This record gives sequence, C-alpha cells and structure tokens, in this order.
Amino acid sequence: MTIEILTELLHERKFAALIEALDEINAVDAAEFMATLSEEELPTVFRLLKKDTAAEIFAELPAMLQEQIVGSMSDKELSGVMEELFIDDAVDLLEEMPANVVSRILKTTSAERRKEINRFLKYPEDSVGSIMTSEWISIYSSLTVEEAVSYIRKTGIDKETVYVIYVTDARKTLVGIIELRDLLFAKSEDLISNLMQTSIISVKTTDDKETAATAISKYDLLALPVVDSENRLVGIVTVDDAVDVIQEEATEDIEMMAAITPTDKPYLQIGVFSTFLSRIPWLLILMLSATFTGTIITHYESALGQMVILTAFIPLLMNTGGNAGSQTSVTVIRGLSLGELRMGNILRILWKELRVSLLCGVVLAIVVFGKTILLDRASFSVSMVVALTVLATVIIAKLVGASLPILAKRLGFDPTVMASPFITTIVDAVALLIYFSIASAVLGI
Amino acid sequence: MTIEILTELLHERKFAALIEALDEINAVDAAEFMATLSEEELPTVFRLLKKDTAAEIFAELPAMLQEQIVGSMSDKELSGVMEELFIDDAVDLLEEMPANVVSRILKTTSAERRKEINRFLKYPEDSVGSIMTSEWISIYSSLTVEEAVSYIRKTGIDKETVYVIYVTDARKTLVGIIELRDLLFAKSEDLISNLMQTSIISVKTTDDKETAATAISKYDLLALPVVDSENRLVGIVTVDDAVDVIQEEATEDIEMMAAITPTDKPYLQIGVFSTFLSRIPWLLILMLSATFTGTIITHYESALGQMVILTAFIPLLMNTGGNAGSQTSVTVIRGLSLGELRMGNILRILWKELRVSLLCGVVLAIVVFGKTILLDRASFSVSMVVALTVLATVIIAKLVGASLPILAKRLGFDPTVMASPFITTIVDAVALLIYFSIASAVLGI
Repeated sequence: MTIEILTELLHERKFAALIEALDEINAVDAAEFMATLSEEELPTVFRLLKKDTAAEIFAELPAMLQEQIVGSMSDKELSGVMEELFIDDAVDLLEEMPANVVSRILKTTSAERRKEINRFLKYPEDSVGSIMTSEWISIYSSLTVEEAVSYIRKTGIDKETVYVIYVTDARKTLVGIIELRDLLFAKSEDLISNLMQTSIISVKTTDDKETAATAISKYDLLALPVVDSENRLVGIVTVDDAVDVIQEEATEDIEMMAAITPTDKPYLQIGVFSTFLSRIPWLLILMLSATFTGTIITHYESALGQMVILTAFIPLLMNTGGNAGSQTSVTVIRGLSLGELRMGNILRILWKELRVSLLCGVVLAIVVFGKTILLDRASFSVSMVVALTVLATVIIAKLVGASLPILAKRLGFDPTVMASPFITTIVDAVALLIYFSIASAVLGI
Repeated sequence: MTIEILTELLHERKFAALIEALDEINAVDAAEFMATLSEEELPTVFRLLKKDTAAEIFAELPAMLQEQIVGSMSDKELSGVMEELFIDDAVDLLEEMPANVVSRILKTTSAERRKEINRFLKYPEDSVGSIMTSEWISIYSSLTVEEAVSYIRKTGIDKETVYVIYVTDARKTLVGIIELRDLLFAKSEDLISNLMQTSIISVKTTDDKETAATAISKYDLLALPVVDSENRLVGIVTVDDAVDVIQEEATEDIEMMAAITPTDKPYLQIGVFSTFLSRIPWLLILMLSATFTGTIITHYESALGQMVILTAFIPLLMNTGGNAGSQTSVTVIRGLSLGELRMGNILRILWKELRVSLLCGVVLAIVVFGKTILLDRASFSVSMVVALTVLATVIIAKLVGASLPILAKRLGFDPTVMASPFITTIVDAVALLIYFSIASAVLGI
C-alpha cells in the first residue's frame, strides 16, 4: 500500500476505505502518509481513526504534527489518546511539547497516569529510566501454568510485551523470568516456580541506557527488567527501544569523531543556528590548537627560507600522520564502545600497533622516497629526510592514536573525543618537529 | 554467577553443580567461561553438558574453540550437536571452519540437514539469505485459533521464534502473518483468516542484509519474512540477528570513514599482517593524493621565499578546512545511511550548509584575525589574507563535504568513502589555492 494510493482514496473522499487501509498497514507507514496531509486534512483524518490505531500512529508522528493534532483536539479526545498511548510514548510526547501544551495534556490525563508520567519524567536523559516502560506482566511463582496463562489473557492486552513474563514476590522483588514460549510447551499443572529462570540479567534505572541496549544485544533478549536498589521490578526495556538506542549511540559516536556536538534530531529537522552551535566550538578549539603547529614552523623560519622545497612536503607529512593516527584511534574507540577492548588490553594493543605501524611506515617511506627522488627530482638527502619523517611519524601517530582514547577512558572522559581531529592536531605538531629535527641533522640547516 | 565461581566449582571437581550452573546461566556467559578453560578441560566440560545447552553454548564460542571441540568429538557426538544447532548457526560454523573440518562435519550431518545447509551456503556474504534462518512456524489460514495453538505446541519447540507465525497457502506463498499474542487474546473458534494481518512487510533473499535490519528497526518487528521471487516463504530474519547487523554496519561505516578497509572480526582477533593490509592501501592513496597539495606549494615557492611567515599558517588553514568539511560529510553520510536523507534533498542540504558555513566562517575568520594580528604580531594585510582564506575555505569545505557523498551515492559508490580523509585531501588543495590567490592579490607577491 503506497502513499499514492492512500492520497487517491483521500482525494476521492473514500474515507471508509482510507481508514480501513490505515488500520491495516504498519503504523510507521501510516504516520508517513499522515505527514503528507495539509493542516486541515490532518485532524480530520486523525479523528476518523479507530482509538487504538490513532494512538499507534500518533506515537510515530514527528513532534510538530503531534502538536498540531493536540491543538485541534477537545479535552475529551486528548484524554482518550493519552490513555491509549504506551507510557514511554506518552513521556516522549511531553518532553517534546511546549510548556502550555504540556500543562493542557497533563490536565486532561487521569490522576493515576499523571503520577506515573511524572515519575518517568524525573529520570536523567540518558538513563535506563528514560527509555523503560511500566507496562509489563508480573505473576507469582506459586501459580500453575494454566493459572498464569489465564491471568495473562485477562491482563496482558495493553502490555508492551506478553512474551516475557516477570515473576515477583509480595514485596515486588524480581525472583524469576519466564518466556511465554515456555508456558506454551509446559504442562498446564506445572508450577511457575519450577519453570522460571532464576539467573536474571537486569539493569538499574540510573544505569546508562547504552548498558541496557548492550545487554539486550549481547544476550539476544526480547526485554530486559529494570530494578531499583532493592531489586524491586520498576520497569522493562524492550528490544525495539534497544535498537533505537544502538543506532542513536552509533550516530553520536560518529558525530563526536567528526568533532560535532551530538544532537538527537535528524539533520533536516535541526535549524541552521543549532547546527552552527553544534559545530563551531570544536572548529574554534581545533583551529586555535593548530597555532602550536604554526609556532613550530615560525621557529624554523630561517631554515625554511634557505630550503623552500621542504615546505612542499608539509601537507603530505601532516596528512599521512593524521590518517595513520586516526585509523588507530577510531579502531580503538569503536572497540572500547563495543566492549571488545578494555583498559587491561593496553599493552597488547600498543605491541600490535607498533608492529602494524612498522609495516605501514616502511612501505610508505619506500614509496615516498621513490616518488620524491624520481618525480619531484629532489636531492637524495631531502628524499631521505622526507622518508625518515614518514616512517617516524606513522609509528608515533599509531601509538598516540592507540593510547589517547584508552587514557581518556581511564580519566573518565568519553574516548570518542580522542578521534581524528584531536589526534590530527597532535600528530601534525609531532610530524613537523620530527621533520625539522631530521632536516637539521641531515641537511645541516 | 561470575566466572570465578564457575572456575572454583571446576577446580573442586564439583561437576554436577558446574553443569547445573552452566545450564542455568545465559549461554553467552557460559561461553565466556568455557573460553577460559585449558585445551584439556574444554572438551571434558563440554561433553558433560546437556544436549540442548551444549548446542546453545557451542553457537556462542569463538571459531578457534569450536574447531577444538569438533576435533575432540566422535562422529556421533558431532552429528548430535549439528542437529541441535539452529540452521543459521550451523551455516556460520561451516563458514568459519577449515576445509577438512567442514567435510567431516557435513559427512556426519543427516542428508536432509546437509541439503538445507548447502542451500544457505550459496547466498552471497552480505545478502539477507546469509543471515536468515529456516526454522519458522507456518500454518494454513483455514485453521481455528485452537487448532493453530495446538499445532504450534506440537511443532514449535525447536523453532527460532514462536511469537510470529506465518500463514501460507498450499503453494507456500506467504498470505498473512499473525502474532502469538493475537492468538492468546482471540476466541478459540476464531479463524486465522479473519485474524491475520495481510499487509506484509517482507524482503527477498538477494536483498542486502542491511535492508532487512532497517525494516526490522523501522517497523519494530520481532521477525521479518524472507520470500523468493514468487512470494514463497523461504526464511525469516529475527530481531537479534538484525541487531548484530546494525552494529556491524555501524562499525563498518566508522572504519571506512577513518580510511580502513572493514573487517568483520574484533580487533584483538585480527593478525598484525591483516590489520596492515586493511590500512596500507588507503594510507598510500591518500599520501600520494597529497602530492597535488605539494605541487601547489612548489608553484608558489618564490612567493613563500619572500614571505616565510605565510608558511606558518598553512597547518591552521588545512586543519580548519579539513575539520569543517568532515563535519558536513560525516553528517550527510550518516543521514544517507539511516535513510533520513535522500538524493532529492540535495538542494535543501546545500542551502542549509551554505548558511551554516557562513556563520562558522565569519566567527572563525574574526577569531583568527584577532589572533594573527594580536598574538602572532603579523601585519594587517597578512592577517586579512589569513582571515579571508579561513572564511572562503570553510564555505567551500562544507559545500564539498555535502555534495561529494551524495554524488558518490548517485554514481553507485558507497558514500562512506567520501568521509574525512578524502574530503581533507581535496579541501587541503582548495585551501592552499585560495590562500595563495588571496595572498598574491592583497600582498602583491
């Protein structure tokens, strides 16, 4: 069912067919269609939708359109949508809306739901609490399979997942987990206490949301329980939310590696000024750090005045050093972030990088020597200087690229800031220092 | 249950307790423990495990240990493990093993399973076929809910998921999908044909595996059906495999952005020479491209000889241009890869980048002018030349950074190669050309 067909149904005013189609297709696609509607059409079509379909599609709309729809709804309609939304979607909505809309939404929400929403709004932005949901099924371990299934059928319909069921005691402590598939294949008189898994993987509300996503990915879970400090069950994180976190975190890492302050919105939805603000601090810092490199050149000004040909190789040396360093730093950063590398691996990493950098450095030095002497027609001694500088720079660049991210992590910083631009600035200075030292020694300038 | 406790049980030779513990904990953790065992202990402990637990743990072990275990097993034991493995894990195993082990494994496998494995081995490495599994449940639409549930209980126990059930006709054509949760909440006499969703999201075996992962992420699916060209169901991709693909693809993108040929193994498992091979081609290409920048400097050699102070600003100009360009190129590449940006957005992107680059450029130019004239004590005209070059370079860098990835995609290349290192090389040359042109005009050299 393409957007074109839905648009045709709308323009031919075949509303019954349109609503049926929107009900049938995936809410994500339905939301994409809704986003193409005019400001007048949107609330009209939305009002015709079935209550639960309406809530599902609403949760998938961009904030701007959610605001439009909220603005067009009566308090009663609004309250209906709020009760249908999953709690995490309701919280996301409130976080996106301007203050006056928030207060109107909260006014029309039932007291019980308002209390629940307020609890969720208090969790810090990147915590597990901020992505968990409170709609799970919990049962007692004393039930039989038959009793458990009948309980799930009665209470499960509005839960975010019914496939993972949590077993708690009277104090809400999480004592076990059972999957619906285990209930399906068990005998009806079996006791939950005999079937449940008691080796439980869980996270705390205050953990970083990446911890939850990593656990779900590592252990192939459909949902992960969230407990408080006394091991009482307070929420669950489902795999679909974990997938979103994994994608966001990868984007964030990539942005930080390119010296951009991460934002959590898609590119086209961010204003020019916000984009500017996310980029300018790093450009300024990195530009001013390059001053140091300039100082080195100024220091050797008279030498360069004598042999201007040395200047021609500065870009090549800086680029090669920067690229060699960022290859290593990016590899180490990604390894740290996927949990494949730890601080304890530092010696192994440095030893490996030393050997890799020797191989890379020797090959590059030979090629650059040939190029310099044959193509650039430089003298033997100048070609030697360039080749030796390439070799030394590549080795140092790779060792710096390997150590700095690990050092940053050790000091409690995000290792991602130690990616290409930062490494490049350091390696540039080092490359030039080596260059001029070798040049002074070999050429006697 | 930590690895230490398990090790203690092993050393105290409390095998019953150890086996029970390994059975209880997650297979990923159990595999981590098994990886700490000696070459003698590993097959001993493995042999004691229950058949299904053994298969689960085996699937999580690194290839080297799988090979060790296979080597220690009798043909009968091997055949037992192979029948217990999910088909996608069995295929992964064969792809990792050396030829002599593969032929031994295939010899001990039942004819039916061998046929199935061979079919899977034929799919290209990055295709949906290579990650799908053939263990799904399919039913006819004429069944009632009660009949369907009883069928699932009979046949579902060794299926990779029982939560999504596929409805096919006699020709195996996929006609509908129903979730186990819908069966749970339906009346036992309801017909599947009335309950199933008929609006189906599916992929083809030959699609890129990223397509499957993106669909699962976008539509929050637990499993995605894979069909052949005649819409017959041939496999499913489950959400846990999609999560792995998403993480691998992000790593691959990050590696390519840092000028590394992607590998699919963790850093510490790759040999020094393989790491060298994945890095050296790009270092060579980028080093040789920097020749062009050198040529520009050589061309202006006499001008630089007259005013050596101009040389001191070359690193600053090159770095700032490179950073500004890679901020934009990386943002656009990530947007393209997440599907947030399309070719059709190019004018919108360029218009936005033009405005952002003007803001960034003006701020950087003012700061660099102040720094040059006050700290570096350069003349007014030299400071003007540097500031104007920064402004022009930032604007051009951002426009180049935005266009090249889109152009690459348009021409059918992976836009990721147009990331930082490549953009930097181009922008370096542009920055120097601008610099010397402005310097010639303003300073008359």
